[in-house]
Amino acid sequence: MDIIQFVEQSIGQWRSQRSAHHMAFSHFEAVQSIIDIDLLDRQDPAVVELCQAYDVDPSSTVAPFQMKWEGQSDWDEDSPEVKGNAILVPVPDPLMPNRGKLLRDRGYAETIAAAGEYHFLEDGTFVLITAYERAAAEERIWFANPNLRFRVSLIKTSGGSGVVTASFSSEIRSSKSQ
Amino acid sequence: MDIIQFVEQSIGQWRSQRSAHHMAFSHFEAVQSIIDIDLLDRQDPAVVELCQAYDVDPSSTVAPFQMKWEGQSDWDEDSPEVKGNAILVPVPDPLMPNRGKLLRDRGYAETIAAAGEYHFLEDGTFVLITAYERAAAEERIWFANPNLRFRVSLIKTSGGSGVVTASFSSEIRSSKSQ
Repeated sequence: MDIIQFVEQSIGQWRSQRSAHHMAFSHFEAVQSIIDIDLLDRQDPAVVELCQAYDVDPSSTVAPFQMKWEGQSDWDEDSPEVKGNAILVPVPDPLMPNRGKLLRDRGYAETIAAAGEYHFLEDGTFVLITAYERAAAEERIWFANPNLRFRVSLIKTSGGSGVVTASFSSEIRSSKSQ
Repeated sequence: MDIIQFVEQSIGQWRSQRSAHHMAFSHFEAVQSIIDIDLLDRQDPAVVELCQAYDVDPSSTVAPFQMKWEGQSDWDEDSPEVKGNAILVPVPDPLMPNRGKLLRDRGYAETIAAAGEYHFLEDGTFVLITAYERAAAEERIWFANPNLRFRVSLIKTSGGSGVVTASFSSEIRSSKSQ
């Protein structure tokens, strides 16, 4: 598995079931959402801008993509819908094809731009580690079959040893593209 | 990571938060339980009996252990508590120390004895695949730190490509031993 295959396999619309475990107080949160993942052009102005912000040559990037999500959490009935979007730009390591950086215009743990480090395990699991100022995020994504993928996301203390929230998503592809 | 280290790290009492996703009808189930994991002696009659049932020489086994769990599901308020125990006996592959068989006196997907195949990924994740007559189970367990482990369990159709249930557990160690 390399990042180009991984992004190709991810393109489409996904129906996501996510359970979050808030560790300190053993709380369960359930979120149902629709996630759209679409390829972007490397010349897309948002991609070029993100590359400039990280001083990355756009020609060293591959398969930039956009994620949009929209859903509903059971955490607080009155809360607005869970909704957002992000642009993600992989920059593979030229020497180690199973590793690289992933630029993102909005972070997961904090809503600022972030660059994470990704690698693939021997079984094809994608692992992404992103250090923020006051937290760290670790994400693992793997495919059970071409239309079903799983994602485990951890929000850690910035030191990396304490886990604040652990969440698990099952994502079923409902269409290959829109 | 090898199976002896893995079992040693698992000994103790764990407070578990488990979310199950029933894929066909997007149902969330939440289970809270206490799991006790204790080492057994290789001479323990239950261990010897399990080895005999699988025609395994007890001297080729390592670190047999017992798991007990007791908890409560939100699936059905009237249902009895989730409660059970199992004896597990690792039989490492003599040639590949990161692989082996795991004998079990009660299965997970079906309540009969089962022998699964385990291996460790390069990052220490334990992966166990068990084929039953009408289903297959895949389990991944990894440690975020010595007192926090995660477990993803899939129940698949016997062909292996369809996933019936996916569940995610966060397990926090509350004591090292009893």
